[in-house]
Amino acid sequence: MSLIVQKYGGTSVGSPERIRNVAKRVAKFKAQGHDIVVAVSAMSGETNRLIALAREIQSSPDPRELDVMVSTGEQVTIALLAMALKDLGLKAKSYTGAQVRILTDSAHTKARIVSIDEERMRADLDSGHVVVVAGFQGVDAEGNITTLGRGGSDTTGVALAAALKADECQIYTDVDGVYTTDPRIVPKARRLKSITFEEMLEMASLGSKVLQIRSVEFAGKYKVKLRVLSSFEEDGEGTLITFEEEGKMEQPIISGIAFNRDEAKITVRGVPDKPGIAYQILGPVADANIEVDMIIQNVGAEGTTDFSFTVNKIDYDKAMKILQDVQKHLGAREVIGDSSIAKVSVVGVGMRSHVGVASQMFRTLAEEGINIQMMSTSEIKISVVIDEKYLELAVRILHKAFQLDQEV
Amino acid sequence: MSLIVQKYGGTSVGSPERIRNVAKRVAKFKAQGHDIVVAVSAMSGETNRLIALAREIQSSPDPRELDVMVSTGEQVTIALLAMALKDLGLKAKSYTGAQVRILTDSAHTKARIVSIDEERMRADLDSGHVVVVAGFQGVDAEGNITTLGRGGSDTTGVALAAALKADECQIYTDVDGVYTTDPRIVPKARRLKSITFEEMLEMASLGSKVLQIRSVEFAGKYKVKLRVLSSFEEDGEGTLITFEEEGKMEQPIISGIAFNRDEAKITVRGVPDKPGIAYQILGPVADANIEVDMIIQNVGAEGTTDFSFTVNKIDYDKAMKILQDVQKHLGAREVIGDSSIAKVSVVGVGMRSHVGVASQMFRTLAEEGINIQMMSTSEIKISVVIDEKYLELAVRILHKAFQLDQEV
Repeated sequence: MSLIVQKYGGTSVGSPERIRNVAKRVAKFKAQGHDIVVAVSAMSGETNRLIALAREIQSSPDPRELDVMVSTGEQVTIALLAMALKDLGLKAKSYTGAQVRILTDSAHTKARIVSIDEERMRADLDSGHVVVVAGFQGVDAEGNITTLGRGGSDTTGVALAAALKADECQIYTDVDGVYTTDPRIVPKARRLKSITFEEMLEMASLGSKVLQIRSVEFAGKYKVKLRVLSSFEEDGEGTLITFEEEGKMEQPIISGIAFNRDEAKITVRGVPDKPGIAYQILGPVADANIEVDMIIQNVGAEGTTDFSFTVNKIDYDKAMKILQDVQKHLGAREVIGDSSIAKVSVVGVGMRSHVGVASQMFRTLAEEGINIQMMSTSEIKISVVIDEKYLELAVRILHKAFQLDQEV
Repeated sequence: MSLIVQKYGGTSVGSPERIRNVAKRVAKFKAQGHDIVVAVSAMSGETNRLIALAREIQSSPDPRELDVMVSTGEQVTIALLAMALKDLGLKAKSYTGAQVRILTDSAHTKARIVSIDEERMRADLDSGHVVVVAGFQGVDAEGNITTLGRGGSDTTGVALAAALKADECQIYTDVDGVYTTDPRIVPKARRLKSITFEEMLEMASLGSKVLQIRSVEFAGKYKVKLRVLSSFEEDGEGTLITFEEEGKMEQPIISGIAFNRDEAKITVRGVPDKPGIAYQILGPVADANIEVDMIIQNVGAEGTTDFSFTVNKIDYDKAMKILQDVQKHLGAREVIGDSSIAKVSVVGVGMRSHVGVASQMFRTLAEEGINIQMMSTSEIKISVVIDEKYLELAVRILHKAFQLDQEV
């Protein structure tokens, strides 16, 4: 008998019929003798509906009030799932983030979990209840409702598993696991039986969109056994996220090709090259709670330097505005931005012990005449920024060049 | 400078445009120097949408979970109204029932308010905020979300006014006050400038539907100055609910004709006539949280008695089932029910000092051949149960007979 935390995304609970199916799956695990805690997202489309409604009132909705509003999406789902479980004769109880309570900081619309009170859940499990928790939301120390930002339900699932020391955290989604790349772009993309935590981290952060990055970080930090599965498939095995030490000795060189269309790049040109400029440029951006992904600094002309970074497209206008102030203050020559870019990355723990991955990547892109605008590397990935229009082409030729369509 | 509690119903906040209008009205009062607390309902149609969704999962939704779900309706409205107020440059803050906190008992879907913590609201008012509170909902001592039942937002408004010792509680609705009867049935119905608390109580409980009965009871108990106004009319005066001692010396005999289509009648025939039978019949009904309105006991044949009462149509099936058990237990002859009835009442504090109201009422109905099935009287009202199909006719002829279409 294990304690399993299951997380179901928006499409998995997108209709009453699907919610009933989730209840049946939960009942199956419960019948096997497991204790089950379920975290759920809002029904698909609901969060967008609520945000659109808010925008009809305020073009840029007040973050505290937006959280009050958007959090209702998951609140509806927990009630419906608890009803569906009771309809199957199970004992079940729903909790909002505030009720659990999932304590977060006060950064509305992108709050971070500080702690989870497991006492009520533990008591419910002990008395045979299935515990249903609203994903994506929490409450700050003053009792204000907060949300964790898009995809935050995954983080809720993993955080619940960590707090309860669950045996496994199962993330149910509309795909049956992690693929070598997006099958919509490369039909020959394969499902990976397992992937290391570090690869998954790079895949998620680079836009594979299967799991939210923070949930994977959380899983790594608390050593939560994480599995991605399809909620539409009976008895699928999904993809297990392993920690490197448990992994196979022989790793494939490259596990997958990740990509992200949601970034924009900003370059500050002609910055006087003095210590502390990176902080002076990125400090105000961070203060505005804008997340920065790639950061690159090139040597410029005559004691100046060029500084580039990427942000989420959503934050692009705000970041440009901030940078225009920074430019004056720093005496930089100009600030230029481009939001029609895409990032493509090759990811794999095997890369560490193999030279030649970078050169193969660059040759492959060059052969198709795709220009590399920015580049950054880590131990297990190489990312390039290219013109958005070449994205699909780049993913396809890289998938082929690294022989990802062939079973290892 | 006064402290005013305003309550806006579902149609008043039925669209983003209407929410903006509510914000403008609040701003006008705020500009006059008043402190404002606003209680709001769910956007019109939303509660029904949520209940329908719940019924797709469970034909008879679990009450605890239904409250979790339905309470999201007001939660969306408070956020939208707070955004609209901020958009006008006001300081505003929204609170769910749980956040305020509005402590209730644990009778899910029809909870009663136990206490309201005014501390947070008072602090917000002191710092110049408009406080926006979700109507209809609260939280029990264990932190479970509860709702007050249909129309409970009025009760929230009055309870907030009582807790904050507000100078006035303004209930904004889609009618501009209390009428002598429903203008949809009698076009000549007139708006009353004022009505006594007792008349209002009878009018509301008898189905005038302008205010929920519990809110009027609350107002009476805590001497809250209550005014019903239209949210679609600039500068209307609405109808003020007065307490009798403040009323005019000369009261009109009859203030209005109320009616209710939502009741069903149940008769237990041939009950052995012993002490305690009323309790034995109605005790189990009350235990099931079913509210009973009219209660009549007639002498029957041979040491037996006939016992009739009315319940809400929603509770009819449940009540009939309970009564069938009671029947066996009591050895009563039979239980019969009829859900196609309607109740019509004439209401007026002036009735006390005038004889002849009852006889005028009965004569008027008799002249049109309308049979009276049940009858009950109080100091300020006379109610009759008639066949549902005669309802409109009865209201029209009584309105005319008591000259309610003429200004007093």
